Amino acid sequence: MKTLAALVFPEFQTLDLYGPLEMFGDPKLEVEITIVAEQSTPVPSRHGPRVVVDKTLAEGAHYDLVFVPGGPGTPVEVENAAINTWLTVAAQHAELVMGVCTGAALLANIGLLDGRKATTCKEDFEWSKPFGPQVDWVPQARWVEDGKFMTSSGVSAGIDMSLGAIARLWGKETAERIALEAEYDWHRDPTWDPFARHYGLV
Amino acid sequence: MKTLAALVFPEFQTLDLYGPLEMFGDPKLEVEITIVAEQSTPVPSRHGPRVVVDKTLAEGAHYDLVFVPGGPGTPVEVENAAINTWLTVAAQHAELVMGVCTGAALLANIGLLDGRKATTCKEDFEWSKPFGPQVDWVPQARWVEDGKFMTSSGVSAGIDMSLGAIARLWGKETAERIALEAEYDWHRDPTWDPFARHYGLV
Repeated sequence: MKTLAALVFPEFQTLDLYGPLEMFGDPKLEVEITIVAEQSTPVPSRHGPRVVVDKTLAEGAHYDLVFVPGGPGTPVEVENAAINTWLTVAAQHAELVMGVCTGAALLANIGLLDGRKATTCKEDFEWSKPFGPQVDWVPQARWVEDGKFMTSSGVSAGIDMSLGAIARLWGKETAERIALEAEYDWHRDPTWDPFARHYGLV
Repeated sequence: MKTLAALVFPEFQTLDLYGPLEMFGDPKLEVEITIVAEQSTPVPSRHGPRVVVDKTLAEGAHYDLVFVPGGPGTPVEVENAAINTWLTVAAQHAELVMGVCTGAALLANIGLLDGRKATTCKEDFEWSKPFGPQVDWVPQARWVEDGKFMTSSGVSAGIDMSLGAIARLWGKETAERIALEAEYDWHRDPTWDPFARHYGLV
């Protein structure tokens, strides 16, 4: 039994969040998913649908797994002191901290990725980099793992990273089973990234 | 500008719903997404997180696109008269009706797929079939298109089908752009389906 906090904010990217939750939500993993936000009112994704908030930031920051999506809301949230404080405490306690897409900018911005390898979505790679001048940004990677931090490329890449995280925590066989049940063509190789070339990063 | 109704019910499958909404929610498509449910209270997915309901079934059934996810809640909902009535009316009006995974059983159950080709998730293929004895069930397909009905295989297959639907309605180039922006490795071939073999269907 593990707990997972998924941080949400207005204009988070829909699939950044729900792709990984589909994977971590597998009943046999027994992960309790908590949607965490600054306020208790439902939070709209970039695409409109609103998610109900289970706990506010003020209600605690101690979870085993911490998950941060990206999306058009990120540029506002990097300035959000409540989120920055919560993430700092949550990251300290968690055994694994994950960021998808520009979620990595939120982690980098408060120094969590300093001296570490990390990646972010390829379309906004140059936008994300200045938030972490001490980060070793990897331009071509589906996802990157460095200590207790895992960061992925854009949107759908979060699913591949999550399966990578599940393989790390529960074993490869479990990750393969979950991918199979979702009829998902898992990109098992974290260096697979044709999008880096498309966006001129390599 | 088009309207899309996404039907939800307790224990819908998370990625069945949100993968497609990520695709149809692309801002340039100008699709207005409405989360529709029997009651106005938030609806929990199979994995716990709750979605806010925008409109109840009673508030109308006229949308351009109708979307039905699957999930462990399906066996209960096939018996739900309110959903069956709504789907019948909604399908009549819509230009495109889509079902992911066991969402196809909900459509088949009220005769909407009679005399048509359709597919469903591979793990529950044999469970779904009896709901549509007049349906030409296709065991090996990522998704199947027949007239204004599109049905996909399990969970992640809904993303591929949605891009197929976007290609049909807005053109292939638009679908390619959306896949690229989500850094998604789109399975463009609707006959691609390695999972059918795994589950002994071919």
